Amino acid sequence: MKRQGRPSARRTSIGRRQIPSRAPRAPSVPLNVGVLPNLLGYNVRRAQIALWRDFSRPVGEGEVRPALFSLMILIEANPGIAQIDIANQLDIDKATIVGLVQRLQKRHCVTCRQSTVDRRRQGIYLTERGKTELAQLREEMLTHEARFTRLFSSEELAQLFALLRRIHP
Amino acid sequence: MKRQGRPSARRTSIGRRQIPSRAPRAPSVPLNVGVLPNLLGYNVRRAQIALWRDFSRPVGEGEVRPALFSLMILIEANPGIAQIDIANQLDIDKATIVGLVQRLQKRHCVTCRQSTVDRRRQGIYLTERGKTELAQLREEMLTHEARFTRLFSSEELAQLFALLRRIHP
Repeated sequence: MKRQGRPSARRTSIGRRQIPSRAPRAPSVPLNVGVLPNLLGYNVRRAQIALWRDFSRPVGEGEVRPALFSLMILIEANPGIAQIDIANQLDIDKATIVGLVQRLQKRHCVTCRQSTVDRRRQGIYLTERGKTELAQLREEMLTHEARFTRLFSSEELAQLFALLRRIHP
Repeated sequence: MKRQGRPSARRTSIGRRQIPSRAPRAPSVPLNVGVLPNLLGYNVRRAQIALWRDFSRPVGEGEVRPALFSLMILIEANPGIAQIDIANQLDIDKATIVGLVQRLQKRHCVTCRQSTVDRRRQGIYLTERGKTELAQLREEMLTHEARFTRLFSSEELAQLFALLRRIHP
């Protein structure tokens, strides 16, 4: 899903907040949506858009906000991880990961250096600043998650997770 | 999710098929994925990526393949629809819709002309070629859907839809 970022806004922190929310959208005419609501793909995508927008909107981070969070979580949990392993794990193109890592490098959130595990390859490590930003991002993520998980009982949520995992085994 | 398209490949048909599938990816090291699998957003996104990839991969359409299908379905079901109404209905940025409509225009799948409903605005209509391409795309979509819906009983599928719709009301 391609989104318009806010290229002119200078972002100095990943965790900036309190940007006013968008006005709600309402179709100006009643539409015939055809077969779409009966498609699994459509429903998953709509849910993904809703979640994406809720997490991405307050900080103007553009399309990569949830991916950036996942990336930092992986780097934190696997110091020295290689870009290719991140791409494989998140099922995201290597080129996209390279771009995200470069953004994190520019903000001094990660460093790339020779891996201590495999000296032939570059490993990625969170900096102290990256750890601080991730802590803030994690808090935002949990608040965001709570806005949606409270829509479900714990049994329903467990079932939803189980059903979704059949799609992405 | 930003993807690398295949900018050098000339696409003459929406419905081109039988491009060899990618080699499966396997992480080269066991990774600690931290909190990610317990996050609703992560699970929805992974499912969305799996669905997106399955539908998008065979034709090299890049990131917009499912969106293009939804767009054409809406235009078919609502002849003369305005771009803003499509954007509202699909919860996709207007700029993205404009780009998609331009692609469809270049392929002579849609025309834009004065709406018969509201003469002040441009309406979008499927051409004969667009109808033919949509018919093919619809068949592909149903095959794609079946690859995933067969993972569920009809009760499970109904429940999955109901749960997802709470996220995108």
